Amino acid sequence: MNFCSACGEKVQQAIPEGDNRPRYICKACNIIHYQNPKVVTGCIPEWQDKILLCKRAIEPKYGLWTLPAGFMENAESSREGAARETFEEANAELKNMTLFSVFSIAYINQVYTMYRGDLVDGKASAGIESLDVALMDEEEIPWGKLAFKVMDENLRLYYRDKKAGEFKTHYGELLKLDDGSFDVKYF
Amino acid sequence: MNFCSACGEKVQQAIPEGDNRPRYICKACNIIHYQNPKVVTGCIPEWQDKILLCKRAIEPKYGLWTLPAGFMENAESSREGAARETFEEANAELKNMTLFSVFSIAYINQVYTMYRGDLVDGKASAGIESLDVALMDEEEIPWGKLAFKVMDENLRLYYRDKKAGEFKTHYGELLKLDDGSFDVKYF
Repeated sequence: MNFCSACGEKVQQAIPEGDNRPRYICKACNIIHYQNPKVVTGCIPEWQDKILLCKRAIEPKYGLWTLPAGFMENAESSREGAARETFEEANAELKNMTLFSVFSIAYINQVYTMYRGDLVDGKASAGIESLDVALMDEEEIPWGKLAFKVMDENLRLYYRDKKAGEFKTHYGELLKLDDGSFDVKYF
Repeated sequence: MNFCSACGEKVQQAIPEGDNRPRYICKACNIIHYQNPKVVTGCIPEWQDKILLCKRAIEPKYGLWTLPAGFMENAESSREGAARETFEEANAELKNMTLFSVFSIAYINQVYTMYRGDLVDGKASAGIESLDVALMDEEEIPWGKLAFKVMDENLRLYYRDKKAGEFKTHYGELLKLDDGSFDVKYF
């Protein structure tokens, strides 16, 4: 951020009075431009004993499989956003959505909200951002080769809960270690 | 938003290629300025049979009671943010934090994450944004006169779970009706 989005003057970095961290401030129109984490919202679509995955047609991670998800938009709930993303990426409708997990990923300033939901009529096809979609059972999932670590974690939690006969709502924090590997802590 | 925060040129509103909603776009440096919901994160601090509330020293809702909460910052988890807000507003430390609820409030573009946590040593005092803090039992809570509807809902869920002998993780959506009243849906 170099310029004030309201008036176009140059912004400065300073700690506002009563605050404790540097912000972008416009001294011309007296606005503090806060920068905050974004919410990514998505779904584990269920159909009979399978779940729906999408093969990415966009970067990052072009060609790898993942669960439908994307940035939450203004004026929608995180649940509605998860349904919208599932429709955009997989032409798939969901019902009976329930919150399955929340993940904080502090090193990229993101919070993930993931829902479970029933895939209506088992219908899905590749949307514009997907090369392909597929209903997979546990053995068919490309474990260790999914696009995003957070989705790998969601799927592991999903099958653990499924075997235990009870779905819970999970909260985890994903950390990236100095050697590039990941660590996950659950609370 | 009137100006590009990167280069200072005037932005325009248009639907980018492959998108389906209007965004602020800078044609000079080819940046799309997305606007997304913010996360508010907070806590229900527990001590023996009481919970900690704060009396607000700032607008909005100056002088009304609420649970400690505030905007999540970059480079922290939502759990860490809830702990930070509790320390800032009530000089209180927490341990054993677990996710208690997620609320979407689409009409103000916010997602709330609320945690339960043990108040360390039962210690708390008013921080700069609070006029007062107090440990209250269920009868002492100013029901119907709390600062925010979403906190009223959290506290009702909390006592319902407590009486049932099991705390769950809840997901709700808060709606504002045309007459100014609220509706809450749980999923």
